[in-house]
Amino acid sequence: MKVLFLGRFAGGHAPRIVARLTTTPDTEILADDTDAARLAPALAEADIVVGLAWRAGFPPAPRLRLLQCIATGVDLMDLAAVPRGVTVCNTLGHEKPIAEYVIMTMLTLTHRLFDSVLSFRAGSWEASLQGGGTRHGELLGQTVGIIGYGGIGREVARRAAPFGVRLLAANRGPVGDAAPVERIYPLAELDRMLPECDVVVIACALAPETQGLIDARRIALMKPGALLINIARGLIVDEAALYAALRDGRLGGAAIDVWWRYPTPAEPQPLPSRFAFHELPNVLMTPHSSSFTEGTAERRLGAMVGNIDAVIRGEKLINVVTTT
Amino acid sequence: MKVLFLGRFAGGHAPRIVARLTTTPDTEILADDTDAARLAPALAEADIVVGLAWRAGFPPAPRLRLLQCIATGVDLMDLAAVPRGVTVCNTLGHEKPIAEYVIMTMLTLTHRLFDSVLSFRAGSWEASLQGGGTRHGELLGQTVGIIGYGGIGREVARRAAPFGVRLLAANRGPVGDAAPVERIYPLAELDRMLPECDVVVIACALAPETQGLIDARRIALMKPGALLINIARGLIVDEAALYAALRDGRLGGAAIDVWWRYPTPAEPQPLPSRFAFHELPNVLMTPHSSSFTEGTAERRLGAMVGNIDAVIRGEKLINVVTTT
Repeated sequence: MKVLFLGRFAGGHAPRIVARLTTTPDTEILADDTDAARLAPALAEADIVVGLAWRAGFPPAPRLRLLQCIATGVDLMDLAAVPRGVTVCNTLGHEKPIAEYVIMTMLTLTHRLFDSVLSFRAGSWEASLQGGGTRHGELLGQTVGIIGYGGIGREVARRAAPFGVRLLAANRGPVGDAAPVERIYPLAELDRMLPECDVVVIACALAPETQGLIDARRIALMKPGALLINIARGLIVDEAALYAALRDGRLGGAAIDVWWRYPTPAEPQPLPSRFAFHELPNVLMTPHSSSFTEGTAERRLGAMVGNIDAVIRGEKLINVVTTT
Repeated sequence: MKVLFLGRFAGGHAPRIVARLTTTPDTEILADDTDAARLAPALAEADIVVGLAWRAGFPPAPRLRLLQCIATGVDLMDLAAVPRGVTVCNTLGHEKPIAEYVIMTMLTLTHRLFDSVLSFRAGSWEASLQGGGTRHGELLGQTVGIIGYGGIGREVARRAAPFGVRLLAANRGPVGDAAPVERIYPLAELDRMLPECDVVVIACALAPETQGLIDARRIALMKPGALLINIARGLIVDEAALYAALRDGRLGGAAIDVWWRYPTPAEPQPLPSRFAFHELPNVLMTPHSSSFTEGTAERRLGAMVGNIDAVIRGEKLINVVTTT
């Protein structure tokens, strides 16, 4: 049996994965830009490929049984180009730290923590009663609407419930057990949920029906001063409309972890948007790092190790996305 | 019946309290520094005093039945100097926003949110995988120890539980229902709890047995890199020892809302400590503002209005601290 680690990120994981396998396959590591002359013999022998991307035009992989994605999203894999009968698996383990990020940022924006800390560090007591300041908000009693009631949405809801919030959610498909969410709206009725919410959390997949979902019209349906948190994908939100609403104070604030522009080899430190979100004081911006924890890495590693061992031993795979 | 609002903060509340009373007592407002010549006739007639302080040497208050403190702590009231038979009540309603603050700051320190936001605002993707950064932490799997399992401690525990943390607590007296805390240590056995904790939350009252409780010896018992959150009173912690442990990186970080120095008329913007906590990047410092929310003000107002109405109607009081 042979495992091929394809690309920089997969190659980076390879030593830790191999060290934990309880089976002893052959292994090979190839860079992202490996030419066909070197890729062809590697793919010809590979039973398992661990990677992030699969491109149309890849050489044949007749022995391939498992295509193990090192991320959750398989959007860089051209599944139509994967040989027939291959099981494609992704990795999870990110839901809980992302839910932590969502709770953290809704609290931080509501309590105006950055303002308080930065002004107090600078010597002013103005954020307090004694300093004659303005009272901040609290999460208690707020209405939180979650768009996408999947793995992340549910973890958010479980953590938010004991804060005494009213929980709503919108989801594309029907939802079985909704608790602790009070009401699930079909995604087509999102416009009825948005005006109810003090905080809107975007936690759905990027898909044709969610791309551009939060546009200028829907942002205008949100309560004045409401908060928007996006940990899903940048393209779900209309960049220009969100920037204008935050700049003009129609929305109270936003926490944005996912963007419209990402680093490339040609431009390793791009601005993450055409608009100057970094100049807005009411935006908590992070570089797609909400799940960038040691815990996520450890859980993903364990799951990938388990799948490689499972193929070799003929056991059951986890995190199956599809079989081609 | 007559209600006397005594002092600046009580006087500030007076209009909103009076507007919501369903009874119609006489009312008077006096400043903090009112001289005895004006204070004496006011106290002689007062059935109810709303205030923050009661000093030895106050003129007689023969009709007084309710001394309603506008805060939770009655430490500015010299209870031995209050006439016999007076019911002293405090105000609560701060437990939930303080619990929000505790969860918010333990997440913010664990996820290194300030670092990520400030560096990304400045144009760097370094806090992410793509930027080659260092993974941050997550709350999942951490052990959280709460010193003082009273109203605030319980609200913290309820909110922390769904994050998948192990919860411990230390308390002066016996605790009835401990859930969701796994184990309660008597305060005398605090030294056995501290080495277990990734996060220590101070939520106990200031009392002879808690003043200076967290000293250099006990800080040294904490795990290297542990977090300390203090929302109780500054004097529970040894200022010099905490500063040294944070400066030297033996503790991973701290969130401090309560201090060793407070504003006075002579010095309205003091540094809150003899030590330069404001220069430490791993300290989230706030000016005693964790419960400084509109919600707290609203809940306290409602409770004070209820107590004034209750005295006048001969009904039962809430938030009774003691009867002198």
